[in-house]
Amino acid sequence: MLLLRRCHRLNPIGPLSIDRNQVAPVVASCAVRLCSSSNDQRFHQYGFSASWRHVLAGLLAGTGAVLAYGLHRHKAIEKSSPLPIISQEEVTRHRSLKDGVWVTYQGGVYDITEFVSIHPGGEKIMMAAGGAIEPFWSLYAVHNQEHVLEILSEYKIGELKAEDLKKQSTFKSSDPYSSDPERHPALRTNSLKPFNAEPPPEILADSYITPTAFFFKRNHLPVPQVDPDLYRLHVEGLPRGVLTLSLEELKTRFPKHTITATLQCAGNRRSEMNKTRQVKGLNWGFGAIGNATWSGAKLRDVLLAAGYGPDVAQWARHVQFEGLDKEITGSAYGASIPINKAVSEEGDVLLAYEMNGKDIPADHGFPIRVVVPGVVGTRNVKWLGKIIVSAQESSSHWQQKDYKGFAPGIDWDTVDYKSAPAIQELPVQSAITTPAEGSVIDRSEEMLTVKGYAWSGGGREVIRVDVSVDGGKTWKEAKLKSSDKEGDQTSPPLGRAWAWKLWEITVPLPPEAQELELICKAVDNSYNTQPDTFGPIWNVRGLLSNAWHRVKVKISEDDDEE
Amino acid sequence: MLLLRRCHRLNPIGPLSIDRNQVAPVVASCAVRLCSSSNDQRFHQYGFSASWRHVLAGLLAGTGAVLAYGLHRHKAIEKSSPLPIISQEEVTRHRSLKDGVWVTYQGGVYDITEFVSIHPGGEKIMMAAGGAIEPFWSLYAVHNQEHVLEILSEYKIGELKAEDLKKQSTFKSSDPYSSDPERHPALRTNSLKPFNAEPPPEILADSYITPTAFFFKRNHLPVPQVDPDLYRLHVEGLPRGVLTLSLEELKTRFPKHTITATLQCAGNRRSEMNKTRQVKGLNWGFGAIGNATWSGAKLRDVLLAAGYGPDVAQWARHVQFEGLDKEITGSAYGASIPINKAVSEEGDVLLAYEMNGKDIPADHGFPIRVVVPGVVGTRNVKWLGKIIVSAQESSSHWQQKDYKGFAPGIDWDTVDYKSAPAIQELPVQSAITTPAEGSVIDRSEEMLTVKGYAWSGGGREVIRVDVSVDGGKTWKEAKLKSSDKEGDQTSPPLGRAWAWKLWEITVPLPPEAQELELICKAVDNSYNTQPDTFGPIWNVRGLLSNAWHRVKVKISEDDDEE
Repeated sequence: MLLLRRCHRLNPIGPLSIDRNQVAPVVASCAVRLCSSSNDQRFHQYGFSASWRHVLAGLLAGTGAVLAYGLHRHKAIEKSSPLPIISQEEVTRHRSLKDGVWVTYQGGVYDITEFVSIHPGGEKIMMAAGGAIEPFWSLYAVHNQEHVLEILSEYKIGELKAEDLKKQSTFKSSDPYSSDPERHPALRTNSLKPFNAEPPPEILADSYITPTAFFFKRNHLPVPQVDPDLYRLHVEGLPRGVLTLSLEELKTRFPKHTITATLQCAGNRRSEMNKTRQVKGLNWGFGAIGNATWSGAKLRDVLLAAGYGPDVAQWARHVQFEGLDKEITGSAYGASIPINKAVSEEGDVLLAYEMNGKDIPADHGFPIRVVVPGVVGTRNVKWLGKIIVSAQESSSHWQQKDYKGFAPGIDWDTVDYKSAPAIQELPVQSAITTPAEGSVIDRSEEMLTVKGYAWSGGGREVIRVDVSVDGGKTWKEAKLKSSDKEGDQTSPPLGRAWAWKLWEITVPLPPEAQELELICKAVDNSYNTQPDTFGPIWNVRGLLSNAWHRVKVKISEDDDEE
Repeated sequence: MLLLRRCHRLNPIGPLSIDRNQVAPVVASCAVRLCSSSNDQRFHQYGFSASWRHVLAGLLAGTGAVLAYGLHRHKAIEKSSPLPIISQEEVTRHRSLKDGVWVTYQGGVYDITEFVSIHPGGEKIMMAAGGAIEPFWSLYAVHNQEHVLEILSEYKIGELKAEDLKKQSTFKSSDPYSSDPERHPALRTNSLKPFNAEPPPEILADSYITPTAFFFKRNHLPVPQVDPDLYRLHVEGLPRGVLTLSLEELKTRFPKHTITATLQCAGNRRSEMNKTRQVKGLNWGFGAIGNATWSGAKLRDVLLAAGYGPDVAQWARHVQFEGLDKEITGSAYGASIPINKAVSEEGDVLLAYEMNGKDIPADHGFPIRVVVPGVVGTRNVKWLGKIIVSAQESSSHWQQKDYKGFAPGIDWDTVDYKSAPAIQELPVQSAITTPAEGSVIDRSEEMLTVKGYAWSGGGREVIRVDVSVDGGKTWKEAKLKSSDKEGDQTSPPLGRAWAWKLWEITVPLPPEAQELELICKAVDNSYNTQPDTFGPIWNVRGLLSNAWHRVKVKISEDDDEE
């Protein structure tokens, strides 16, 4: 009921007005916010400030209620067969609570009228009334669970006419995610549609350059299909007018630069913050970070070619980016960065067409991704379609009402997005990739090797990683690696340390301990360090989760007993 | 004995070889290191890596032993009067353990032969043999204590001949600190010679611009006397040769720029870290920070005028500064900053001749101080004499072997100064200036106002200060002030937030509490924040002390009882 009320509050027409054309946008907004728990960035795109904890509690409670209701019906209804054949025309006539709400699913016809009021996601279900439910379930992947099908089955009233079913085949191709690329099965999926996944974290410290297949994927929307021959990049907002570049022109008109840079999602390690207190967002482990080489044209060079100069510098403050990935409303994914980062010779912002020496793959922005080294992942816009030099930040949801940090006392009822700046540079970060939480170490091994990654935003170099094996009482300094080359101690130019450091330390197993709490914390060259605990950096969106990483392992005495 | 051993270890001649010319430099190095506890920067200027804790323990133990010995003598010796008149010539003959060690002090002659072996500071005392002890006590202010005079008095053997005493008056003017300027008595002195003092912290948040008289003074050496007409600044290391500028030329040949910038000593808040575990250095409270306006020529402009250009950029990496303040050895105070900070248009490095609208006063670097905004105080070289463009960092003690941070597991026996970069940008910082620790709040006041400062290095703007009145369980956001103007919310240009923010919050007194633990922590625009506790950021030198600031206050119920 809570969920329904929240939808009704936003619905100027009232809960019983179900004219599809009028209701759809409102319902869609509720749908996106309340149903697509996997698509965290869009939850608040309409400035909706519900308490997410309430929403989640409602969602879980609602699902339970629905299951109970379904089982109840199961017992109450006497099954009869065969079920009648029903035409699409007949189904289409049932699009309101008054006339009944019918939907089709894989050739079955279902009368879900009674279900509408207990649907966990609220009335968004009315969007499907009179038609096939598959496209919606494709968008809102929360439905891809067995118990949902069980519930649906209880409402079956007939079979769709064979020729009408055949016509529905077009629905399949209308799934906006149907053209998403294949992904490696080793990835740990946080959300399928849009696709969000991270590698098993233990592989991260095994390679200074993260293999592309295992580089975390963080998509906000379906992956757009881009024909490289037809691709055009538009550079706007400059006095000379729009500069339009083909992919070929980008590659040939501008010098090719290569940098090694770590990208990190602002939500990396959210799952740890989540344990302190529930936050909203994809439950990332500590693998939403990766290090790759990127090659492309410098954004600076392209802006200069488009007419950027001292006159523009007088008023320009931001460079906005628009992706070719689009929301259901047709608006593009967007973000912006400060102009000084964009035009600085030392800012190293690339319009990258290669990742790890090959064409950037579809999941990472083919054919062009902005790589803004030192800056939070979300501003590294993929499938780049447009660059706009402006006095203003991007007005996109993601810039204005999402990727920002707040005080721990702020909740969804009190959050004021205008009160905090959009995240650009990220704070210092580190994590232990091996051993894994809960590992059992054999006492006879005597020594324990701990490995991980460390990185800081803004080009600040990690200068030290401290490791404790006794829960923070004592600390030892790990050995840092700046490449896969043994003994490589080269430092990047000051302020341009875009890539992470891998680190490793081997320590004797403490003789008496049966369990160890391993901790790591990094220090960057501005001597910033990570906070001890998550509670005091907790924030509603679960971003910037950079407290000490703690891993508990057990020591087994098996060998002694033999 | 420990102290003596440490000196002997450095003395190639052996402990009994007391030829002054040979021994003096070695002894002086020990003297500076072991005696001048108030002059923390010079302790390790010869790369001496003794355990400071041992040294301190030895110093304290030694003083105790000396006192006991003095009292013992006091009882044993029968006083006789009048004491004989002794000539300086006779005194001068007593300069060895064999011949006896005599010194003079305020007209008295003392035979301290027996004292040499128990002198807490070791054999450095031999430097004074045969002469007046005042100049040494002026340099090493640790002697300005009553019990030291008591000890000395036990060794008195005569009165110096009146005409020889008269000649000694020149010693007074040889006190290198005798020309130091007057200071405001409200300052809390951490060391007199060199002068190091901070204001009472409660005044800091009362004025956005710290009054010059109350701006913390951090001198490493005596304040040099500079005649502004004779002052010359030398710019070296560039292909065109040395550029020499008079003060007048600096003021007239280059545009005058004004910035508001906060300077902070790397040792600010050391006293809090000291409570965790003993560190070495001046025991600063939280007042070794101040905010001032600075006016002068841009370093960039001066470097360009001296011939800095793309050719130099190929090899230049650092800009070194030398002060006109000199060590006992004649070498100047020195530091360096990275070249990109020095030449960047947005780096705002000034050769400042004004502080808060007036000539920079003697304690702050008259006539020229480099102001390197966003960078640790020690690189903001005062009494600037020389600028050197170089491929190398400054080789000074302060750059190479002092202002660096280390892991908490590193002590004086294991520290490797080469393993850490010289501190440049400082991490995010904040402190509560009112109420003071131990304050008693009247319950009837109902509300409590907490005030303080917050700042971050590298031009990163403080975007939030979180305040807790319950020891960190819950947090509220303080109101930030960017000037003394009411409601001023202007932001500095991105990356150029050189000045601190003052902050304030008024909260209701929790009804049940009898004691409150107030805490503040700041967040800057790279979303770095302060660590929770000091233990894990502890370092041998007690630098970079930026854990949460905690203040305990009591609530009195007096009014209820009336």
